Amino acid sequence: MTKPKKPSRSFASDNNSGVHPDILQAIEAANSGHVVAYGDDPYTASAVKKFREHFGKDTDVYFVFGGTGANVLGLKAVTEPYHAVICAETAHINVDECGAPEKFTGCKLLAAPTRDGKITVDQIKPFLEGVGFEHHVQPRVISVSQSTEMGTVYSPRELKSLASFAHKHDMLLHVDGARIANAAVSLNVDLREITRDAGVDVLSFGGAKNGMMYGEAVVFFDQKLSKGFKYIRKQGTHLPSKMRFISAQFDALLTNGLWRRNAEHANRMAKVLARELEKIPQISITQKVQSNGVFAIVPRKYISVLQKQYFFYVWNESSSEVRLMTSFDTTEPDIDLFVSLVKKTIK
Amino acid sequence: MTKPKKPSRSFASDNNSGVHPDILQAIEAANSGHVVAYGDDPYTASAVKKFREHFGKDTDVYFVFGGTGANVLGLKAVTEPYHAVICAETAHINVDECGAPEKFTGCKLLAAPTRDGKITVDQIKPFLEGVGFEHHVQPRVISVSQSTEMGTVYSPRELKSLASFAHKHDMLLHVDGARIANAAVSLNVDLREITRDAGVDVLSFGGAKNGMMYGEAVVFFDQKLSKGFKYIRKQGTHLPSKMRFISAQFDALLTNGLWRRNAEHANRMAKVLARELEKIPQISITQKVQSNGVFAIVPRKYISVLQKQYFFYVWNESSSEVRLMTSFDTTEPDIDLFVSLVKKTIK
Amino acid sequence: MTKPKKPSRSFASDNNSGVHPDILQAIEAANSGHVVAYGDDPYTASAVKKFREHFGKDTDVYFVFGGTGANVLGLKAVTEPYHAVICAETAHINVDECGAPEKFTGCKLLAAPTRDGKITVDQIKPFLEGVGFEHHVQPRVISVSQSTEMGTVYSPRELKSLASFAHKHDMLLHVDGARIANAAVSLNVDLREITRDAGVDVLSFGGAKNGMMYGEAVVFFDQKLSKGFKYIRKQGTHLPSKMRFISAQFDALLTNGLWRRNAEHANRMAKVLARELEKIPQISITQKVQSNGVFAIVPRKYISVLQKQYFFYVWNESSSEVRLMTSFDTTEPDIDLFVSLVKKTIK
Amino acid sequence: MTKPKKPSRSFASDNNSGVHPDILQAIEAANSGHVVAYGDDPYTASAVKKFREHFGKDTDVYFVFGGTGANVLGLKAVTEPYHAVICAETAHINVDECGAPEKFTGCKLLAAPTRDGKITVDQIKPFLEGVGFEHHVQPRVISVSQSTEMGTVYSPRELKSLASFAHKHDMLLHVDGARIANAAVSLNVDLREITRDAGVDVLSFGGAKNGMMYGEAVVFFDQKLSKGFKYIRKQGTHLPSKMRFISAQFDALLTNGLWRRNAEHANRMAKVLARELEKIPQISITQKVQSNGVFAIVPRKYISVLQKQYFFYVWNESSSEVRLMTSFDTTEPDIDLFVSLVKKTIK
Repeated sequence: MTKPKKPSRSFASDNNSGVHPDILQAIEAANSGHVVAYGDDPYTASAVKKFREHFGKDTDVYFVFGGTGANVLGLKAVTEPYHAVICAETAHINVDECGAPEKFTGCKLLAAPTRDGKITVDQIKPFLEGVGFEHHVQPRVISVSQSTEMGTVYSPRELKSLASFAHKHDMLLHVDGARIANAAVSLNVDLREITRDAGVDVLSFGGAKNGMMYGEAVVFFDQKLSKGFKYIRKQGTHLPSKMRFISAQFDALLTNGLWRRNAEHANRMAKVLARELEKIPQISITQKVQSNGVFAIVPRKYISVLQKQYFFYVWNESSSEVRLMTSFDTTEPDIDLFVSLVKKTIK
Repeated sequence: MTKPKKPSRSFASDNNSGVHPDILQAIEAANSGHVVAYGDDPYTASAVKKFREHFGKDTDVYFVFGGTGANVLGLKAVTEPYHAVICAETAHINVDECGAPEKFTGCKLLAAPTRDGKITVDQIKPFLEGVGFEHHVQPRVISVSQSTEMGTVYSPRELKSLASFAHKHDMLLHVDGARIANAAVSLNVDLREITRDAGVDVLSFGGAKNGMMYGEAVVFFDQKLSKGFKYIRKQGTHLPSKMRFISAQFDALLTNGLWRRNAEHANRMAKVLARELEKIPQISITQKVQSNGVFAIVPRKYISVLQKQYFFYVWNESSSEVRLMTSFDTTEPDIDLFVSLVKKTIK
Repeated sequence: MTKPKKPSRSFASDNNSGVHPDILQAIEAANSGHVVAYGDDPYTASAVKKFREHFGKDTDVYFVFGGTGANVLGLKAVTEPYHAVICAETAHINVDECGAPEKFTGCKLLAAPTRDGKITVDQIKPFLEGVGFEHHVQPRVISVSQSTEMGTVYSPRELKSLASFAHKHDMLLHVDGARIANAAVSLNVDLREITRDAGVDVLSFGGAKNGMMYGEAVVFFDQKLSKGFKYIRKQGTHLPSKMRFISAQFDALLTNGLWRRNAEHANRMAKVLARELEKIPQISITQKVQSNGVFAIVPRKYISVLQKQYFFYVWNESSSEVRLMTSFDTTEPDIDLFVSLVKKTIK
Repeated sequence: MTKPKKPSRSFASDNNSGVHPDILQAIEAANSGHVVAYGDDPYTASAVKKFREHFGKDTDVYFVFGGTGANVLGLKAVTEPYHAVICAETAHINVDECGAPEKFTGCKLLAAPTRDGKITVDQIKPFLEGVGFEHHVQPRVISVSQSTEMGTVYSPRELKSLASFAHKHDMLLHVDGARIANAAVSLNVDLREITRDAGVDVLSFGGAKNGMMYGEAVVFFDQKLSKGFKYIRKQGTHLPSKMRFISAQFDALLTNGLWRRNAEHANRMAKVLARELEKIPQISITQKVQSNGVFAIVPRKYISVLQKQYFFYVWNESSSEVRLMTSFDTTEPDIDLFVSLVKKTIK
């Protein structure tokens, strides 16, 4: 008897997928002759121009290698070590970066528990009690993930409320936008509406989870905040030498709505997946499906059976909740195959 | 009158070149289906295997995004913040990383002036005077660049002498091998002979300056030293999510001697370039041409004229010394064109 | 009409008191002639000897300027930056050191909410879920305050349980002993029984809150852990030059039971204060009075009236809970005077 | 035969001496009743007032425990981690603080060799070549020691020249004034003339080497620079709880010219010591005796003989140069006794 062929696409994470063909083609097209290293090249100039088309003329954008780097360096740019960064308990910076923010910025993270990965002004207020008291860290940044680690999305109104509160208290609003495209698509807005126009100050703009090979952008909407950032990036070990290959990817992603098409597809696949899983009585969806993640409680005994063929994460051991992510390359047959297996297993 | 077409390849740096076609092909080949992120994938397993074929079975190898990251994290793995790293004044870690080593490791760098970028045991000895004295930083690592920033190369004997001195004094030998391939080729040895077999403890193995797009490897020859390195890499913001695309590059580089061919070619082009420049009486070569760099004194007034068509760095303003680097893709016609211009300009 | 004379002693904190006369006398006695700076002097040798009499022969003890320094440097000695320190949410290291632990060690603090300032093994267990997973910080230290910031005390059995759990999971037990003397006295044990003998690995031994002018000791019960600590102390800016004046204080504190007498007195005064306050129906004591702190709910409107004459902290604004601390120099008349005022105010 | 009684005062360092009686008396006088901790007390208010009388009304002054702390925190206040601090190779921050400045500020130190411990504008200029180039650290502070570690003194004109150069290049001038009193006395100026009035921006004002027990002050002459310093001090573990005892010492030191008398005496003793040693043909004085240090070449074979009775440091092993420091409590008989021994030994 032969071992069953594993499916070529799983639901573990959007970074388990490869590179979108248009992105790869852009990389290949950039591979011609010599250009100056470290970003003083036409590919980078073009990509920066694209960012400014999306986000506004005086946007300052810096490319780095990856997402943790983007978050950490963006936060460093706007904090002193005695500051604190307020975030949701589930935030990537709080749980999934091995303490990189604390190590590099010196700051403490003040994390609030949430039901859906979204923090509110009311949750933030108590953290301000020690303002001006030198024994306590001083809150300086509110950092939110958009879309969140729970697949939910902040509305423009919610972001504005956070930004307005932040600015009123001499704080800034930072967005971990590893999946910012999925959020924009979900809300049916353009990128600017949920960032600059909502009062966001600093944005990590993600590439790898939306079809790029590598590369992330730190985007500043106030040039006073990015003063010195070129040194922070270099000292932060995130100045790519062959920058053009990141720039070419971003250029392609931001051209002809590729960023939108990729995210739209992934989000739609998540809806389909959730809809099909919901039909199975033993399974319950635990979070609103607003982007490309589906959270579901699956009876414990079936999980390991499914994991024999599919790689995915158990989000919460005690409640038997799993996380399923879709990607730009997820297909409806992928979902059919998976859902069939789930049904067969559970039945 | 039309603006003269600029040459497509300059001599500014080996990181101004693009990606070797075989490397690009390997990237494309890896772009199929889903694989687990962060390195738990067959491409990475294969690349690690290649490293072990070159460096020995129990070699521990970790891929990171870039060279500064590799140096900084490799040094962090083997130091406490009260330690010091001894290096040449010209070392990349000392002058070209914007203080990243100090920021991330907390260590002080103790730099010795050299004529040719190479430090010797005699220069290191005075730094040991404060050993055991708590007011002074404690030397823990000797870090050398191989080949050096001056285009010179440490012989295996020189490395062994440094390693043996280091180990005798409870120190380690670290190699910044951004151009380790060029050194191996120059010495006509394999990679292991000037690293593990010479007593090296930790190596930054460079990819981008030898035809890769991005990616560097931190290589440990003693598994006691790499204990905890997976956390250092993640906290150091250098754990690539789509690892397979770095791994595929390294795999290709270490297969069928591509690393050697690329470096051989670059080194040979440097010899040719130096030979031709030497024929011009107003120019004098200032360093032995042992790898892919040529250092030359060019009369000051001609430099800016040449720079109108060629991008290259003035290494030393006061002595009017320039640095010219060749790459895997430098061609003899490139050199002819450049040398012609030099001759025409100087005449 | 004359302004009422303020009482000379308040209940704000045990560090609002001055220096015990015996300590001051020891300082004066040490002020004779020259001795070698930085600790290589007979006063320090004598003080270290005293520590070893109390804690065991091979105890390693290092004097530093203050309590935050002691905590931070002691934690640094036993952690890597990717480690985490588990503590109670109310811990001094978590809320009252302005992020010093994160800044200096790079570690994340993982804090558990508690009712009485004491954490339990059950609260610690969930923090271990990410052990071995490189995306998460790695728990390495359990840090407890003894006595706690809430005036409560861990029993030897409770400490042993934490130590045993820590050691079983490759962690260490750290004690912030700013008020360790108060805890020992409360439990009627000697200093060793609730530290070394209970499995504690590293201790901040407090002086300033028990009658000293300044000075704290970092105490290691395993000499492997203090390897390199002399450099950590110096690099941590806590190597006092005129060390003899700290040493003389510790010597006096540890001689003829001064440490015990001071703490006994302070603890007894807290009992008296609590007993008297309890008699007032509008006031309720919220924590067990096990050391020298009394926590009490006082009707909001009276607090500001009392604070006109007495300086003390409101611990919890929303519940109208105040903290009152006694000290080695608190007298029964001090308490009478205060309680009279409270009664008069509330009546 | 009895062991010869060792002299009670040596020439090892001015921090081997004890505490001036007036300082000790001020400490005792401050030991009365309770005062608010952490500096919100009348003793601190009074000491700050004294500083402002000496340095000008809007001077911002913060007390810390010790000198390394003062230097490190003062530098942190005015730097980003990608900055560099330029200093003399012999600077205390460069060689005697175990890398504390690098660890805490993240900055690189750029050190220039000097003959007499004093750096000049011409030596600083080459460090500015990389300004604006993100690969290089960015010079932000010139730090000088006044008096220097070699016992020499910068004239007001020299300081003004450094300050003016610094400010012209967007840099600041920091003074490590562990021995600022000795310098002022040597130049016969008041404290303000060689600090604020000479263009100094930040000053570590030393106490322990001029008769205090412990305590140093970080002094800012521009309140924009001290913004946030109260948090830096606390996070830097240098906020003393019983602050009044440092404040009382500074108050005494700055009252009735005690600072001046102590330093005058120490300086005069150095002159006497140098004058007497110079009479011995085998000994040569190597540095100008401008403050309280004497540097002298003593034939190697006699050094260890002398060290049997006197503790002092060999400054330079290879040239057989020793350092002898005088203090506020050095007496002429002390010098006679020492010089007699030297003569007897050498004869």
